[in-house]
This record gives sequence, structure tokens and C-alpha cells, in this order.
Amino acid sequence: MSGVLYFDQAASSWPKPPAVMDAMMQCMQEYAANPGRGSHGMAVKASRTLFETRKNIAKLIGVRNPNNISFALNTTHALNQAIKGYIKPGDHVICSNVEHNSVRRPLEHLKATAGIDLTYLRHDEEGNMSLQDLKEALRPNTTLVVVNHSSNLLGTIMPVGEIGEICRNHGAKLLVDAAQSVGVLPVHVSDMNIDMLAFPGHKGLLGPQGTGGLYIHPELDLEPLLHGGTGSQSEAIHQPTVRPDRYEAGTQNTPGIAGLNEGVKFVLHETVEKIHAKEWALTQQLMEGLLGIQGVTILGPKLGQNKTGIVSFNIQDVDSSEVAFILDQSFQIAVRAGYHCSPLAHEIAGTLAKGAVRASIGYFTTTEEVTTLIDAVREIGSQYAK
Amino acid sequence: MSGVLYFDQAASSWPKPPAVMDAMMQCMQEYAANPGRGSHGMAVKASRTLFETRKNIAKLIGVRNPNNISFALNTTHALNQAIKGYIKPGDHVICSNVEHNSVRRPLEHLKATAGIDLTYLRHDEEGNMSLQDLKEALRPNTTLVVVNHSSNLLGTIMPVGEIGEICRNHGAKLLVDAAQSVGVLPVHVSDMNIDMLAFPGHKGLLGPQGTGGLYIHPELDLEPLLHGGTGSQSEAIHQPTVRPDRYEAGTQNTPGIAGLNEGVKFVLHETVEKIHAKEWALTQQLMEGLLGIQGVTILGPKLGQNKTGIVSFNIQDVDSSEVAFILDQSFQIAVRAGYHCSPLAHEIAGTLAKGAVRASIGYFTTTEEVTTLIDAVREIGSQYAK
Repeated sequence: MSGVLYFDQAASSWPKPPAVMDAMMQCMQEYAANPGRGSHGMAVKASRTLFETRKNIAKLIGVRNPNNISFALNTTHALNQAIKGYIKPGDHVICSNVEHNSVRRPLEHLKATAGIDLTYLRHDEEGNMSLQDLKEALRPNTTLVVVNHSSNLLGTIMPVGEIGEICRNHGAKLLVDAAQSVGVLPVHVSDMNIDMLAFPGHKGLLGPQGTGGLYIHPELDLEPLLHGGTGSQSEAIHQPTVRPDRYEAGTQNTPGIAGLNEGVKFVLHETVEKIHAKEWALTQQLMEGLLGIQGVTILGPKLGQNKTGIVSFNIQDVDSSEVAFILDQSFQIAVRAGYHCSPLAHEIAGTLAKGAVRASIGYFTTTEEVTTLIDAVREIGSQYAK
Repeated sequence: MSGVLYFDQAASSWPKPPAVMDAMMQCMQEYAANPGRGSHGMAVKASRTLFETRKNIAKLIGVRNPNNISFALNTTHALNQAIKGYIKPGDHVICSNVEHNSVRRPLEHLKATAGIDLTYLRHDEEGNMSLQDLKEALRPNTTLVVVNHSSNLLGTIMPVGEIGEICRNHGAKLLVDAAQSVGVLPVHVSDMNIDMLAFPGHKGLLGPQGTGGLYIHPELDLEPLLHGGTGSQSEAIHQPTVRPDRYEAGTQNTPGIAGLNEGVKFVLHETVEKIHAKEWALTQQLMEGLLGIQGVTILGPKLGQNKTGIVSFNIQDVDSSEVAFILDQSFQIAVRAGYHCSPLAHEIAGTLAKGAVRASIGYFTTTEEVTTLIDAVREIGSQYAK
């Protein structure tokens, strides 16, 4: 796919640091045995790789004991573990209306089947939520608040620390969907009062797809989503209570996690502050360029405001899929069109009919690529000029 | 890990055909974008890779429509999807007592929380089950029978086709755990009357860890285990009904599945018949050699009987972990010791106290390696001779 300008970083980051691929290959060639399932050298090396990765992620997100992080197939898996493992019938849950379907659908499922109450907080057009609204929505039986750290459509950054404080004062737990923030925004679970944090391995952490995880506060016990073998307490009829085994049934994705470890190490080395600063500058360049094109509107925070590297836009009333198609076919520029699994966010943005084109920036995106994207949108826009 | 003799194939097969690694690298370097989540070239290539893999697996296991196969993190994930997605309160479920914890624990969880009845069929010492026992265990409310195709401790092969026929006649569904059979024994879901088949990608299919899947009969609708984004019907509040999306929420493990595809193609090219014949011959060589050593006992089927490449044994009353430790440290031979997540199977084999050493054969195992293992066990045995 040489020559492709990849602006779909919010779906999967690409390219990856070369060390990610090297570590995956080394694992496949030298020690792709079962972690935690044998005492022979290869299995021990696999176990150590998982532990080292856990340790590096723990360092990045402010977790004291790495075993409070369990690996998952993807963020959706981690969110389902958190939501279905924690919520009980009769609970009241609050989430925002810019949540991804990976939060909304499990919650709506529990609402339909387990008798929970669900309140959506209304965000403004730029994706900002009101802390006052949150306080007013809290009820005596509110046990959980779920928010994303940054919207996958708008790039808006939520005041997670303040939300965490409100939750703690009320006695509710806070689950954060860090799909768009881990690796690109500072995340610190104890400073931010976060009880559970679901994160992907293949976005900001620069690892391969098929990886992700869930941090669970040490005092919080969840019902496991997957019951099965863990290599520990084999004779027990129930899932072990020891972590991370409790939440990691079955063989883990050792080569993927070996690659993830290198992605996390890269992020730790560069620092999220530097990564965010670079991505923000490119985001501003892109927004400024797009706003200079007649007929282009941008969703979410205004120019100059803090946000992650997500720029969702439309050209007049042109269907977003059409724009994405032309960008791909005529310009070899990869963006994403449609609803981005966040229909309620489109409702507040007024884009439920046409969706939006989402261009997302990564750490390896260049100024020149952003300029090329702006030029391409300008050319497409001129074809539709009224 | 050069020089290691790897006899832990039943946990994860190793080494892999070189094409597996090549495909993973190609994916990571050229098209690690989100399958089903964008229309740009890289995303389309990712989608096609998933579909091609599905098609090849479908060909291998006798599935007409590849979309009836959904991908999973591992067999445990697939089994949890099948068991928790199908069983309803009041159901009666039958399984064998040589099931892996990935079957037993989810069933015991439902027994404790969802009011289901559970019957374990008693197997004989060699791991064989009686079809008559199965018939007698069926009740009017028996909705599901779960059996492994081959025991991960004993290597015994279950008469899945006949079990399937009994289930169909009764109106119960059959879920098969193919963790130890897919890729090494003929599996044909329609000929064998299998309604759901859970399988790993990293064992007999020779793919990487972090892959696996579930076949679901087209007329069977399961409650999804994971609710979330699918890239399709984003505006719907509920999980789409279209397959495979319904059972594949979140980003899939594209590089892992790209590797798996090459593993499956390798198996299709070699044929499972040839693979099984080779593994069986090596298994017989190993059993014959071990049986010639004083004090060694082998669990499961007798010499000459059909089985998969699993040889579990003990040296007198020596703890299995001790034997495995010596094999690893002094001989660089990787085997697995302990309970292998199948405590009930140990009960019937009479090895609940000391566990068992499991040596498992793969397609790349050689006659010379088997001879070396036999010699090592003989040497260890002589140290413990009474």
C-alpha cells in the first residue's frame, strides 16, 4: 500500500515502530508457547513478556500493581467485561451521549434484559459535558458512570479527573473508555479517581490489533466475562480470584502482546506530552486548512481548543461516504466516513443524515501529508461548489 | 530457544509454517487497518483477509457459508459465546467428565447463577464415553450437549458423529470443543450434526495465539457475548443480526488472522488425513518407547488405538511437575505437567494427586525427537528406580 496517506489513525494507528514487528516475529520464531501454562523455558519467556508489558502499561497509566491490568481482544471486550461484570439489576448507570457503541450497546442490552436504569448526559455541539448535569443526574442507586476520555467522533477531551471526584464523593464507580486517549493524553488512574479503564493496544499504544486491556481497581471484584482455564487452580470449579488470571481465561495473544510492549515502550520513551503536542499542532494545521475551504464544516471543538487528533468534517451536504470514496480512489488518502459507531454524537452534531468524514492524526503523520489532505478536500469541494 | 525439543503442541503448536509469519508481517507493514470499518484500500484489504480466512476454515470443517464462522480471541472465548449465548434458565445440559475448564467453568457458573441443570457423563479410564449413557441422560428439557472432540489430557477421540445423531433425534443441540482436533482430525460440521464448533487458531491450524473461532449453525441465534461496534448498522441500539458482525464486536486481530489463514492453507494442502497419520505414528512410537520403561504408566487409550498426538504419563509416583522440571532443565525438553485444566479427567485416571506429564506431538515433530524424549524419560526413571 505504498503511497497511501493514512488518516484513519483513530481506528488503528499505522505505521507501527519497527520494534513492534521485530518483537512479534521474535515471539513467533522463538517462544510462542503458552504463558502461565507450563514451566518450560519457552512458556516462562511468554509469561515474562506478558508481565513486562503489563508493567510498562502500568507505568504509563499510573497503576501500582501491574496484575490489576488484564489483557483483552480489544477495547470492546474490556468494556463488556467492565460493564457486564460490575452492573447488577436495579443499578442506575450514567453515560454520555457521545459514547461509542461499545459502551452504549452493552448498557442498552442490560437495560433491556437486567432491569437497570440508564441516563444519557446531553453534551453540547462541541462534545463538552456539564459537570453540573452529572451531579444532578446522580441518584442514590447510581453505581456506575461511564465516559470516554476523548470522543471518537469529535476529539473532545472530557474532564475525567473532575468526573472521578464527583463519582467518588457520591460513592459511584467510574469506568473510562480510553480508546482515543491512552498513549496520546496523560492518563493516571489514581490521580483521576478512575476505577476501571478500558484501552486498546492498536491505537495510541502503537501495538498490533488483537490487543487491549482493562485496569480494575484492586478493591473492585468483577464477575468474569469469560470462564475457563487459567493455568492456575485447575482443580477449582470456579474462576480463580487471583489477578490477572481471574479475567484472562484461555490462551492470550502472546505475539500481539510482545508487539504491544514495544509500542508502549516507544510511547514511554517519547512521552505522551510530546506525542500530544505534535498531534495537536497537526490537528490545528488540518482544521485551519479545512476551515479555509468554502462549504467545509468541522464537528467538535473550535480551532485553538484542546482535543485529540480527530477532525470530523463535511463538505456542504455531500454524503460523507462519497467524499471518503473520492479521497481513496483519486487521491489515495485513507479516511473514514459514516457514523463511527456513535449515532448519538451525530444527533447532537446534526449530522445523522450524512454522517461525517473523519480524518485522524497519528504520531507519524507529517505536515506535508496534512497539506496534501487539505488540497485534496479543496479540489473535491470545488467540484461541488454551488 | 534453539535446541529446545518442543513437546507442548497441545497447548500451542510450534514452530509455524514460515508463510504464517510472512503474512503477519505483510499485514503489519502494509494493511493493518480496520476490517469492516472503512472503504479505503487498506481497510478493504483487511476485510478481504478476514473473509478469505473464514472461507478456508469453512472449507476445512464443512461449512457452506463462511459468515457462519466468527473469530474469537481463543477457544475459551468461543466456548463462552456458545454456552452463555445459547443456554437459558431451566435448561438441562449434558457434558462429559473429561471436559476442559473452558467448558466446565462456564457451565458451573450458569448452574450457580442461572438455574440450569448439569449432568456429567462418566467416561471410562481410557476416556471413552458410552452412547447408551448419553441416551439415558437425556431429559425433555435437555437443550445442549457439550463434548470435546478429543480430550486434552488423554487424546481419546469422541464419536462426535454418533453423538450428533443422538442429539438431533432428541432435539438437543451439540456444541463441540475442537481445541485438540481441528487441523489434525477430520471435522465436518454438517456430516457430524454439529450445531456449534469452537476451535483455536494456534494449535492444529498452525496460526498464531490470539486467534480462534466459533461456527454457529445458520438457524441458531445466540445472544452475543460482546456488545459493541461492528462497522455495520451503527445507528441501531442493538447488536446487528447480520453475521459475522453479530458475534464480532470491536476490532478483530487482523495480523493474527492473516497468519492463521496461512496455517489453514498449509493444513488444507497437506490434508488432515496425512497430518493425523504422521502424528499417530509418532504417538505410537512414543507410547511404545515409554511403555518399555519400568515404572512408567500412560493415561488414556491403549497402544494401537486411535487417538490424537497426546501422551500423558507418570513415572511411578513422582510428582509430574518434578519430571517436567528435570526434562526442561537437564534435557531442554518442553512438556507440560499438572492438571491441564481437566480435573475430572484426572479423577477418572486416578492421577488427581500427582497430575501427569503431558508430551504432545505436532506435525513438525520428528522420529529423532521422540527417541530423545524416550531416552530422557528412561534416564529420569532410572534415578527413581526402587
